[in-house]
Amino acid sequence: MKKFAIIVAGGSGQRMEASIPKQFLLLDNIPILFHTIQAFVALGDIQIILVLPTSQKDYWVELCNKYQFYPSIIICDGGKERFYSVKNGLNLINEPGLVAIHDGVRPLITTTILQQSFQDAAQYGSSVMAIPLKDSIRQVTSNGSSLAVDRTNFRLIQTPQTFVIDEIKSAYDIDFLNFTDDASVMEHSGYPIHLTEGSFQNIKITTKEDLVFAEAIINVNKTISSKSGQ
Amino acid sequence: MKKFAIIVAGGSGQRMEASIPKQFLLLDNIPILFHTIQAFVALGDIQIILVLPTSQKDYWVELCNKYQFYPSIIICDGGKERFYSVKNGLNLINEPGLVAIHDGVRPLITTTILQQSFQDAAQYGSSVMAIPLKDSIRQVTSNGSSLAVDRTNFRLIQTPQTFVIDEIKSAYDIDFLNFTDDASVMEHSGYPIHLTEGSFQNIKITTKEDLVFAEAIINVNKTISSKSGQ
Repeated sequence: MKKFAIIVAGGSGQRMEASIPKQFLLLDNIPILFHTIQAFVALGDIQIILVLPTSQKDYWVELCNKYQFYPSIIICDGGKERFYSVKNGLNLINEPGLVAIHDGVRPLITTTILQQSFQDAAQYGSSVMAIPLKDSIRQVTSNGSSLAVDRTNFRLIQTPQTFVIDEIKSAYDIDFLNFTDDASVMEHSGYPIHLTEGSFQNIKITTKEDLVFAEAIINVNKTISSKSGQ
Repeated sequence: MKKFAIIVAGGSGQRMEASIPKQFLLLDNIPILFHTIQAFVALGDIQIILVLPTSQKDYWVELCNKYQFYPSIIICDGGKERFYSVKNGLNLINEPGLVAIHDGVRPLITTTILQQSFQDAAQYGSSVMAIPLKDSIRQVTSNGSSLAVDRTNFRLIQTPQTFVIDEIKSAYDIDFLNFTDDASVMEHSGYPIHLTEGSFQNIKITTKEDLVFAEAIINVNKTISSKSGQ
């Protein structure tokens, strides 16, 4: 089946206490978003759509020129919520196939994970990356108190989330509700969700600590690959 | 109020693919557990109880000699579940006060967090460190499928978890159920739980990635403190 990707890059630098949007902060000397795109490009045989806020498009072109980074991707305008950004991306796809929707600020995504996601989506109809919780978890109640819940009954959800194109397009053919990811949109339309085991490395870069973590993981991976003679 | 700490160090090296228990792996050139203990020692005016598996006590002494690390702490035998380890520690405390129970493999705990925990426990009766979730979350259902739940209604739970001594001792005066932390034991006995805002840095070292993260955070903190002239 034909493969598509929608990479959603709509963040600001607010939680990072940075003046530039977090997807453009440098990680291993290149913008975070470049890492993300490179993983998809490396997969090969895929049409990549990058959804960017309109206000960031000039900066994007500037960065591409600065780093001589010219991937073969389609740039698409973002919306005021993530939901509308994804919807804009989906509107550009008019062929059957599978689409992996991915957060621009998950730069540690690997080609192996992407392959698994497309493979599971082909087999099960969808693939949503999920990892178990390492910490205990509590549910906050409406009166301000909280209750222990069994963490083994929960999964932390990541991206990519990969779907059959006509199904995700039909799921997105609704008005915005308070969705935090694409699996929720699919579920709202009654589609079943298949969870694929994700990787603890595939973090979303939201805080300064996340950036430190990502930098460290990249360095460790470099050491491993240089030790193995690559 | 008099301050006590129970540091629970019962892990094996299994998930780390390491041959020595994870609390003894090196972080910034000293065993993980030494960092944890140092943060409590730095707080001052506190009685520290370290709960160790009986089988690891000889190795502990060996490590202390090797690194010339001789903190003023009481060593206590661990039990076959974390529940029994904490209970053994509590049995050594026979005075009123507050006790902070902490995972030995959370070495990035800071004196500031510990102070906040004791302060909140004195004011609210308990203090359980909690952080918001950055990822979406799904609940796995009994038929193997899963459902989106609102992540803003949940908190990831860390340690320290600090309690009034006679209350936590009475809560622990029961048979073992499937508790994953001390807040759950308290809650089972009807005590209310006060959540204190924790730190994203205060991670539990469970996987190899966690160790990489901890090492990176320590290096960043060193850079910050050397830049500020300390």
